[in-house]
Amino acid sequence: MTKERLTLYDTTLRDGQQTQGVQFSTPEKHRIVEALDALGIDYIEGGWPGANPTDSAFFEEVGHTRAKIAAFGMTKRAGRSAENDDVLAAVMNAGTPAVCLVGKTHDFHVTAALGISLDENVENIRASIAHIVAQGREALFDAEHFFDGYKANPEYALTCLKAAHDAGARWVVLCDTNGGALPTEVGEITAAVIAAGLPGDRIGIHTHNDTEMAVAATLAAVDAGARQIQGTLNGLGERCGNANLTSLIPTLLLKEPYASRFETGVTPEALEGMTRISRMLDEVLNRVPFKQSAYVGSSAFAHKAGLHASAILKDPSTYEHVEPASVGNRRVIPMSNQAGQSNLRRRLAEAGLEVPDKDPALARILDRIKAREADGYSYDTAQASFELLARDELGQLPDFFEVKRYRVTVERRKNKYNKMISLSEAVVVVKVDGEKKLSVSESMDDLGNDRGPVNALAKALAKDLGSYQEIIDDMRLVDFKVRITQGGTEAVTRVIIDSEDGSGRRWSTVGVSANIIDASFEALLDAVRWKLIRDRA
Amino acid sequence: MTKERLTLYDTTLRDGQQTQGVQFSTPEKHRIVEALDALGIDYIEGGWPGANPTDSAFFEEVGHTRAKIAAFGMTKRAGRSAENDDVLAAVMNAGTPAVCLVGKTHDFHVTAALGISLDENVENIRASIAHIVAQGREALFDAEHFFDGYKANPEYALTCLKAAHDAGARWVVLCDTNGGALPTEVGEITAAVIAAGLPGDRIGIHTHNDTEMAVAATLAAVDAGARQIQGTLNGLGERCGNANLTSLIPTLLLKEPYASRFETGVTPEALEGMTRISRMLDEVLNRVPFKQSAYVGSSAFAHKAGLHASAILKDPSTYEHVEPASVGNRRVIPMSNQAGQSNLRRRLAEAGLEVPDKDPALARILDRIKAREADGYSYDTAQASFELLARDELGQLPDFFEVKRYRVTVERRKNKYNKMISLSEAVVVVKVDGEKKLSVSESMDDLGNDRGPVNALAKALAKDLGSYQEIIDDMRLVDFKVRITQGGTEAVTRVIIDSEDGSGRRWSTVGVSANIIDASFEALLDAVRWKLIRDRA
Repeated sequence: MTKERLTLYDTTLRDGQQTQGVQFSTPEKHRIVEALDALGIDYIEGGWPGANPTDSAFFEEVGHTRAKIAAFGMTKRAGRSAENDDVLAAVMNAGTPAVCLVGKTHDFHVTAALGISLDENVENIRASIAHIVAQGREALFDAEHFFDGYKANPEYALTCLKAAHDAGARWVVLCDTNGGALPTEVGEITAAVIAAGLPGDRIGIHTHNDTEMAVAATLAAVDAGARQIQGTLNGLGERCGNANLTSLIPTLLLKEPYASRFETGVTPEALEGMTRISRMLDEVLNRVPFKQSAYVGSSAFAHKAGLHASAILKDPSTYEHVEPASVGNRRVIPMSNQAGQSNLRRRLAEAGLEVPDKDPALARILDRIKAREADGYSYDTAQASFELLARDELGQLPDFFEVKRYRVTVERRKNKYNKMISLSEAVVVVKVDGEKKLSVSESMDDLGNDRGPVNALAKALAKDLGSYQEIIDDMRLVDFKVRITQGGTEAVTRVIIDSEDGSGRRWSTVGVSANIIDASFEALLDAVRWKLIRDRA
Repeated sequence: MTKERLTLYDTTLRDGQQTQGVQFSTPEKHRIVEALDALGIDYIEGGWPGANPTDSAFFEEVGHTRAKIAAFGMTKRAGRSAENDDVLAAVMNAGTPAVCLVGKTHDFHVTAALGISLDENVENIRASIAHIVAQGREALFDAEHFFDGYKANPEYALTCLKAAHDAGARWVVLCDTNGGALPTEVGEITAAVIAAGLPGDRIGIHTHNDTEMAVAATLAAVDAGARQIQGTLNGLGERCGNANLTSLIPTLLLKEPYASRFETGVTPEALEGMTRISRMLDEVLNRVPFKQSAYVGSSAFAHKAGLHASAILKDPSTYEHVEPASVGNRRVIPMSNQAGQSNLRRRLAEAGLEVPDKDPALARILDRIKAREADGYSYDTAQASFELLARDELGQLPDFFEVKRYRVTVERRKNKYNKMISLSEAVVVVKVDGEKKLSVSESMDDLGNDRGPVNALAKALAKDLGSYQEIIDDMRLVDFKVRITQGGTEAVTRVIIDSEDGSGRRWSTVGVSANIIDASFEALLDAVRWKLIRDRA
């Protein structure tokens, strides 16, 4: 049986950026584009060129992608031609293969928000889409408030859609802008649109999660015949977010009736990267990943109930609707030390530590990780710190040096030109090769800018490590993440540091303390120790 | 038109406790029961008596409620009578008016997990339910894996349901235990159960969120005729969680076709407590509330896009599907680089600053916000810092005091017992009321624990502010968020601080610098200034 093609349109960089607190930098946008492109998304909407400087910069620098890059904008305003609308011109100037314009389809919005006649609005849609097509680009029309509009005045809402369609829009996208349409309504109205003569393979669906049903509403539209899905990674988006592609894509590929009926640009192999992509986005946003996310959450395949856990050991299908590995996730059985140990051995092997099955050190390592996690540590990403902890239990951690004490001072005051300046100074005292060494560094970089106390500490620590000095000379701190978390009963600071060396190798370490400087120093020490283990000899 | 009654059954205390990391204490359970009872929930499932000590203690101490309290357990095991099953006896001994027993209805689970015959399982269901009824209690039957069971062997799954029904169960509850059934399937199978002779007003629905569609699947069952809804507050529960009552209840009361067709025990007045109850649960769990939650999230009515914000000012229904106040939530118009002047005026008005339309200060404020956002600042959440910036442009920011300089020292060394300890000390010099004041504080709290350099700085800054001292005495730092972001071409640290005072008022401020201590100090200063503006006079 031939499968029908479903088209996936990602708007993480545009509607996703409407999430409160989210503002992507241009490099972050490029990193997300790379992940979406590797996943197999068909269209990537990059932003609204001209609306803000970051969006404009993004389009200037975007490289070659398999996916079509789309620029977002709005239909031309009344009283001028499409050619003479400067807002539309800025969108066209981004030079993207696809251009998606939002326009009104709800009569109330046309008269109340735009203050123009219903006919003028239809003409704005028609002329704008025709303009895009005339420039040789692919046009998409986002029908704003379509479901509310259809309920209020179906004839007018359809007239708007047809104007876009007849002017050459490749897709008309039915948007539930306020997020209030329930799945049943979305299904019925989508079916009515198709019955009115618009073909399903020209219709897209764009929903919001204001009733926690954006995913279901999207599938209801697909069931009714829509063939393009718009959504965002991790359900980012205005208010309660957009339809979550991170949930939708696994359902489309793994669940019936969708798996047999449709195909998308996402292969089963690419789907195995879903969990990683979801976590990457949270890392970019410095968010704690939501554990209970469908498919990709760290609890999505966690079996806490005793009855469930024991049945899972007999047959995973008893309490799992899909294979965790199919989306790159893992099963978690908190009760089972057995499962814990095999997991652990795999991770040790990744660090080059082969430990025999049933070695008593395995249980000791697990206990210590549990205790440290209760204190606020996290070893999910800090693989280098995990390795050091394991080496310590296995008796394979050399005493390279000992830190006797350190002191950091941060001072802010007026300089002689009466300007406020900051300066940090760090003193680190280590004992190495039997010798005590005092090092002092300040936080000023070569350009005379203050880089802060952690930078000063890192420089002082790495300034003189005797015979080890040469090994760590090419190390540098490339990223630094801080989170307030719960350790025991008190709030503590967790710092994760990413380091890099001359060979381009990157590694992550973790430190935890109520004191942010202490937590940073602990992570720095681990970073140096890991590098010494890898490169001495 | 007479409305049909829908029954609400809450399992936050039982299935909700299967959430990874969740373990309620007995007093916490009582606090949640009180909230659920005030909300108007019909049944509150308190736990599994006998399965763990907290659950048993809860039932001993639960007081009078309008809601029926239910104890959870499982059908009797094979090879003994209901009267002689000690697990079932422990459940009955809790003495609750309602008892809900889970039992198998999927033939594969009966033979593979229980290892008994299909007939034995049916008899276990019948005898267990009959036993509850004979004791004068109300019986409910949770049909585990019902949808998978029905797909595999509809005849057997229905036989199990009928055994419970005929033995006197008030409700048979169709459970999608693995969370893999899609809403369409749930609707079709529920309709088939009713067509097979089980009346809808004896049928409940219990779904899980493994495809992010638990809410939609629940409503699909209601559409098909089921009249009891099981769910949890905030969607707590095993793996990805249960159907979220915090989303379902507002939809049932506020949205069509449900609002006209059904009534529940929740009044419109009680619904206004929904947001508060949701936040209370997060507080009990010490979780940061999820901002994008439907209806109750702090972003649920946040309008970031400039076009949306300006339309909202004309008529809130343009971008809101329900009134925020109907669920006890509120509208937020955050500031961001996409916001226009109308958005800005609205936000200024919220801060008590009435600025005339077209005032040239508006453009200056927007420009300054844009420039600061390019430097790494973010004003989406830091409303208090936004207000200070605007007041500065409007000439309405008093010079309360001037910080001349500060110095913080963080030291880590061995104490006299040869144990490594950390201590921070901060000196802040301010000029206030024409007088120079030096204050020094250290980071040790009352218990002798080091709370770090930011804490020491906050204490030193607030130690002596002359005539303003009294106003800020009840301030405290309640949260502290740090992220590394891009400011211009360099990585900088953005710190957001949440402060609280004796009246329970909370406000957020932001600071940005390459130096984390500087960034924190800037946010601290804003916090103090904002409090002074609000409370002096």
